[in-house]
Amino acid sequence: MNKLEENLVKWRRDFHHYPETGFLEMRTASIVAGILDGLGFELQMGKEVMSAEHCMGKPGEKETKAHVEWAKEHGANPDYLAIFSEGYTGIVATLDTGKRGPTVAYRVDMDALPIYESTSESHVPLQKGFRSINDKMHACGHDAHTAIGLGLASLLAANKAELQGKFKLIFQPAEEGTRGAKSMVEAGVVADVDYFIASHIGTGVPHNHVVAANNGFLATSKLDVSFRGVASHAGGDPEEGKNALLAAANAALNLTAITRHSKGATRINVGEMHAGSGRNIIPDKAALKVETRGETSEINEFVKQQAESIISGAAAMYQISYDMDFVGEGKSCTCSKEVAAVLHECTESAGLTAILESDDSAGSEDATFFIDAVQKQGGFGTYCVFGTDLAAGHHNEKFDINEETLLPAVEILFASAKKLGGKG
Amino acid sequence: MNKLEENLVKWRRDFHHYPETGFLEMRTASIVAGILDGLGFELQMGKEVMSAEHCMGKPGEKETKAHVEWAKEHGANPDYLAIFSEGYTGIVATLDTGKRGPTVAYRVDMDALPIYESTSESHVPLQKGFRSINDKMHACGHDAHTAIGLGLASLLAANKAELQGKFKLIFQPAEEGTRGAKSMVEAGVVADVDYFIASHIGTGVPHNHVVAANNGFLATSKLDVSFRGVASHAGGDPEEGKNALLAAANAALNLTAITRHSKGATRINVGEMHAGSGRNIIPDKAALKVETRGETSEINEFVKQQAESIISGAAAMYQISYDMDFVGEGKSCTCSKEVAAVLHECTESAGLTAILESDDSAGSEDATFFIDAVQKQGGFGTYCVFGTDLAAGHHNEKFDINEETLLPAVEILFASAKKLGGKG
Amino acid sequence: MNKLEENLVKWRRDFHHYPETGFLEMRTASIVAGILDGLGFELQMGKEVMSAEHCMGKPGEKETKAHVEWAKEHGANPDYLAIFSEGYTGIVATLDTGKRGPTVAYRVDMDALPIYESTSESHVPLQKGFRSINDKMHACGHDAHTAIGLGLASLLAANKAELQGKFKLIFQPAEEGTRGAKSMVEAGVVADVDYFIASHIGTGVPHNHVVAANNGFLATSKLDVSFRGVASHAGGDPEEGKNALLAAANAALNLTAITRHSKGATRINVGEMHAGSGRNIIPDKAALKVETRGETSEINEFVKQQAESIISGAAAMYQISYDMDFVGEGKSCTCSKEVAAVLHECTESAGLTAILESDDSAGSEDATFFIDAVQKQGGFGTYCVFGTDLAAGHHNEKFDINEETLLPAVEILFASAKKLGGKG
Amino acid sequence: MNKLEENLVKWRRDFHHYPETGFLEMRTASIVAGILDGLGFELQMGKEVMSAEHCMGKPGEKETKAHVEWAKEHGANPDYLAIFSEGYTGIVATLDTGKRGPTVAYRVDMDALPIYESTSESHVPLQKGFRSINDKMHACGHDAHTAIGLGLASLLAANKAELQGKFKLIFQPAEEGTRGAKSMVEAGVVADVDYFIASHIGTGVPHNHVVAANNGFLATSKLDVSFRGVASHAGGDPEEGKNALLAAANAALNLTAITRHSKGATRINVGEMHAGSGRNIIPDKAALKVETRGETSEINEFVKQQAESIISGAAAMYQISYDMDFVGEGKSCTCSKEVAAVLHECTESAGLTAILESDDSAGSEDATFFIDAVQKQGGFGTYCVFGTDLAAGHHNEKFDINEETLLPAVEILFASAKKLGGKG
Repeated sequence: MNKLEENLVKWRRDFHHYPETGFLEMRTASIVAGILDGLGFELQMGKEVMSAEHCMGKPGEKETKAHVEWAKEHGANPDYLAIFSEGYTGIVATLDTGKRGPTVAYRVDMDALPIYESTSESHVPLQKGFRSINDKMHACGHDAHTAIGLGLASLLAANKAELQGKFKLIFQPAEEGTRGAKSMVEAGVVADVDYFIASHIGTGVPHNHVVAANNGFLATSKLDVSFRGVASHAGGDPEEGKNALLAAANAALNLTAITRHSKGATRINVGEMHAGSGRNIIPDKAALKVETRGETSEINEFVKQQAESIISGAAAMYQISYDMDFVGEGKSCTCSKEVAAVLHECTESAGLTAILESDDSAGSEDATFFIDAVQKQGGFGTYCVFGTDLAAGHHNEKFDINEETLLPAVEILFASAKKLGGKG
Repeated sequence: MNKLEENLVKWRRDFHHYPETGFLEMRTASIVAGILDGLGFELQMGKEVMSAEHCMGKPGEKETKAHVEWAKEHGANPDYLAIFSEGYTGIVATLDTGKRGPTVAYRVDMDALPIYESTSESHVPLQKGFRSINDKMHACGHDAHTAIGLGLASLLAANKAELQGKFKLIFQPAEEGTRGAKSMVEAGVVADVDYFIASHIGTGVPHNHVVAANNGFLATSKLDVSFRGVASHAGGDPEEGKNALLAAANAALNLTAITRHSKGATRINVGEMHAGSGRNIIPDKAALKVETRGETSEINEFVKQQAESIISGAAAMYQISYDMDFVGEGKSCTCSKEVAAVLHECTESAGLTAILESDDSAGSEDATFFIDAVQKQGGFGTYCVFGTDLAAGHHNEKFDINEETLLPAVEILFASAKKLGGKG
Repeated sequence: MNKLEENLVKWRRDFHHYPETGFLEMRTASIVAGILDGLGFELQMGKEVMSAEHCMGKPGEKETKAHVEWAKEHGANPDYLAIFSEGYTGIVATLDTGKRGPTVAYRVDMDALPIYESTSESHVPLQKGFRSINDKMHACGHDAHTAIGLGLASLLAANKAELQGKFKLIFQPAEEGTRGAKSMVEAGVVADVDYFIASHIGTGVPHNHVVAANNGFLATSKLDVSFRGVASHAGGDPEEGKNALLAAANAALNLTAITRHSKGATRINVGEMHAGSGRNIIPDKAALKVETRGETSEINEFVKQQAESIISGAAAMYQISYDMDFVGEGKSCTCSKEVAAVLHECTESAGLTAILESDDSAGSEDATFFIDAVQKQGGFGTYCVFGTDLAAGHHNEKFDINEETLLPAVEILFASAKKLGGKG
Repeated sequence: MNKLEENLVKWRRDFHHYPETGFLEMRTASIVAGILDGLGFELQMGKEVMSAEHCMGKPGEKETKAHVEWAKEHGANPDYLAIFSEGYTGIVATLDTGKRGPTVAYRVDMDALPIYESTSESHVPLQKGFRSINDKMHACGHDAHTAIGLGLASLLAANKAELQGKFKLIFQPAEEGTRGAKSMVEAGVVADVDYFIASHIGTGVPHNHVVAANNGFLATSKLDVSFRGVASHAGGDPEEGKNALLAAANAALNLTAITRHSKGATRINVGEMHAGSGRNIIPDKAALKVETRGETSEINEFVKQQAESIISGAAAMYQISYDMDFVGEGKSCTCSKEVAAVLHECTESAGLTAILESDDSAGSEDATFFIDAVQKQGGFGTYCVFGTDLAAGHHNEKFDINEETLLPAVEILFASAKKLGGKG
């Protein structure tokens, strides 16, 4: 195992051991910043690279403050922690070769999930001592993504002399729930980017296989709805109440009944409902967690508009008020053939199995915000997948990867950097 | 059998044989008008005694016109038919004794029901040859009421010399569905009335028993709701439709779920729903027939207001429009002890069993509009019941009465006229 | 215009003038039978070619009997009318060349729609005097299909000498609502068929274009649901009722809320709901017209099973009973390349624009039952479309075709018969 | 202030300071037991006087065990705590005079509510230093009831010589939620009782007024419903899920839509709903807290049966399973005139305003189980109310009483004991 491979495994296990959920990746970001700084990258961080107004579903001040303490106690790099202490944990690291050439960007996501990691003796992270120390878990592979991003940074820095153009590594918070990308796009971090690559590990693609263009993401919106009625005693004066539970129950039913769309697939889910404060009280409060999806952004927009009418009408039926917050958003996208072709070539050169395009997804991703922005300004973007062996599916408590995937992923991305930087 | 009794039976059977539903009582009214005219009453008729704007649930022009022909062919009095040919079939007949005294009014309802009368051989109207000749039926006893009204008129006219004050006989259309009374009240027919008596036959009270004050009517509103969405092909472009059927289904469910009221009984019923125009079409039309009831007019008003929010919110959920028409209305009321006492006394004098007050009803009546108006101007009103033997319950296809109830009813009402006219 | 073309137009206009809906195509079938008989085809008709038990949504005896009279009065061929007088209006006409070769079948549908045809002066059938004489309408082109079928029969008969194998022309009732095909398949009419072709005119394909394999039909089920509760007076004793309207409203809402399927498109529509018998009666009856669709038969089966649970659960909620009748069914299918290739070749030879395959449909068809049966026994089937100019979309009151499509359609089908009969 | 009055206030404030909710009244019961024991009462406690199987809504083992520790740390009487440590906190204290006479029982409830007591400076318990030390609160007056029970015990013991018959003081747990009485009735604690009196303080009756017979309690049932479906990813394979949230939403809506009853008032409330475990997961769990009420036990039974059908049908619609637990129950009752008359007389003798009967309640009480049982065995029971000044309504965080009500309440109850014990 060479030094780079050792580092990749070391980094990945460290991030796995100390998982942090969206907008709280303070320890992770501080360590990433320290390493990138040491490699000679120019850093922009925190609110410089994130529009506060476009952060969705960001935890409150209390939770954020408490996490600063946690990060401090668990090995955050003290030189950078303060920068991320308000929960704006994004980093853009730039390496300018000084030589003429395009700007090439790579997106890396860093957040973990609120899942309690398996304590089964067969679970490798437990056996090898890097199981999560808290009740969060890297059950989607973003620990590996962050390590791959740092590996790519190492190679770019070490080989700067032979590269052309400019390279930007985008370390993004809060991909889970599709909450973080939009704020970085709105802050302009890809405004100068010509080529853009986001990557993911796993997703059912076999080890040593690489998909150069993963299309098929569904556009999505996540919304939190809260209804506010009036409480009253259910026996003594029920007519004084305004029933928020019934408004929410109607909303849930009718949201699910939103019509199919002839132009493509849709999804709608009311994943949670919590209402009422006691058996004998007319319920004055109700909350729903909702998500919509559509095969295209237009179809998702259609579903969203139906949803708004239903929620507003359900509140009106019961003479109550409501709030609706958008706490996540993802677009549909079609990857650019121009950049996918380069990745495909690099994969073949590396001796791995190359798949040009796949359409096989019913999930959502907010890297699509970056791709869409780059394409709109005339650039090219793709979303690629590095296949690996999975111990269990994504978001499962026994999720684990084959660490032998890390090095080839870094090498293929680095090869793409060389090729893309040399364009134009 | 004296002449009066013979007439009562003849009249009742004639009306029973030729039943007419609300706002179509043209034959009935024309015959009533002819008789009253002959007795020397001063007549006001049609729009003179009915506010067109306050008629609720009146049949359309086409049906009304067609019925004129029917009435013509079935024995309507041609001297009066034209007056009632637009469906304003109310009559107020006044007998002024010229002597000082109060104004005393009696309400008589004339309409039949859209029920197909029994063809069973045991059904007395069939045996005696006066079963309905069409598909309507006097299944509530208004044929008897009309006959009693004419009987009372006969006695008043014959005994004018010994009476004091002024007497008004109000022949009202469309009591069924509580649709006709309001229009007569709004036309001012009881504006000068000091004492008011409405009466009903049957309702579970035994033969030869008379209830002087029948309280307990529920206030009620009848509303017709129609939703208008947009049709589209359910397979080809479902997203182009706006679903009126689902809006109506939501309205029906949530109307029924309107909260109970701690201050008294309520009712809510969605009695009919008709929606859609084909299996493979997103339904663009839906109609509901709704009624609300409340132990008091205030409680009914509460239910009505909830209903309006629900209907409006259900339409908003599906981005569609709606119309809501009030097609019937009844109030709750408390009978005046002053006039009930007189009836009670007259009943006892007649040797029948007198019951001062009963509270036993979950039905509705629009005579309550008259009582309420009279009471509000300082007068007194009551709703009395003449018990009889019933062959089957009201609104049943085998409904029939004991005709021996007719004469005592007339005599007691006439006795009350003598007493009340002599007051003040 | 040659004689065949004249006949095609004459036949089409005659059928258009006298439209008959599903299982009532008595006049049409009697005329078709007469012509085919004259051409020397061997005929099987009525229950011989239709399984009574698998007819779906067949009109009742009364309506069927009444239509016999209508057909008699409107030019039915008296020699054949009796055969079709119970509504089994299918015909299979066979021409055996006596020469070795496969059995080749063509499906033709004959039924019209319950649509009132346009009376606009710009409507060509009105101008030329063949607008519908009743309140039905050939608004989908089955009049043209029947004419094309007769045209094909003429050419087959006239050119028998140069043909090989055996030819079956299947004249099917009740394609609308996907109600008739299954009964003919179940009667075994394609049990000996090697090649099968169904065809349709229009569907958005341009004039002089022919689609050889029209895939993309959604599998479908049509179901009629009736709920039976208990009526009671909504004011007097609401607790005695069992509310069928509310059960149906719940079913309608929850049917529409059946989950999306990740494997392909679905549809669900409650197209009609009729419930209740009076405003002040707890509704004891309710009926729904429902249809489900799925991109594959398996997906449609999934939706159907969810639907059954919902309907049964909704009835249970209100302690009432229900009936569920399947009144139509269609499969999804994939056309056989083997036979599509032949049609494609014949189209090109005829100098028209040939399209091998189209996937563009969200409708349903019961010809899929024939194709599925033929494929399952090792044969080959396809569904082709002859493009034409449409005055308005299918099922629109102004629908009309370009009659110049008739002749080429017949010629291409005849060419395919020559080629397919020569196989093997 | 005499010694008894001082004790009443001291006891009441102590219980107020250390509130304990239903089936956790361990500190309270241990102190009560110690005092009663000291007064010479014969004690039966815990499972001796409570049927475990009929305890409804009893907290789980973990919570119960934790509370033992709390009680230990907060002044529970260590001599009795062990008896109540499993949460069977009922006590029956008997004083047998040895003299011939009937058995007379008094019911006292001891539990507090899960309400956070006001911290307003105007709140008297705060000012005087006996505000609750935890997050529970005596916001219904059971602290006063317990004190009154002890006061009555003091007088009975002190005056044993002049009394006749046998006296039972029943200290009941968990009256809130109507959960505890049934288990004591089933354990037979009133099987020998001839006269029974339950009492309550406040409820809107003015200070120095006493209602001898408080009728009008609604019969009630409390039920917890949990639905169990199947989770799946809402984007990736929604069709694999079985949606418990939608089943619960349907149940909530249709429960609320249960028909009114013509024989008397009803109530139905779905007070809480909690469903689902994440926005993008088809919800596999849902829970409802429901209560029904009826003017009579029969009417409540009707509502309960409708509720069961609805819950079972809603689960069936979504092919899921459910559990339904009855966690509370109360009966309607009519107080016995025989015992009410005695209380009325005692009130008048005490110089307070006596009200024989009141009907003014829409609440529920499980003392009705005792009254019903006593009446069924030929005895007499009543529920009386001692009026007081309330700082805020029952169950309000600012609830407080006028402590001057305590002494007269004790004296009137003691007077009734003298009179009733002397009967027969």
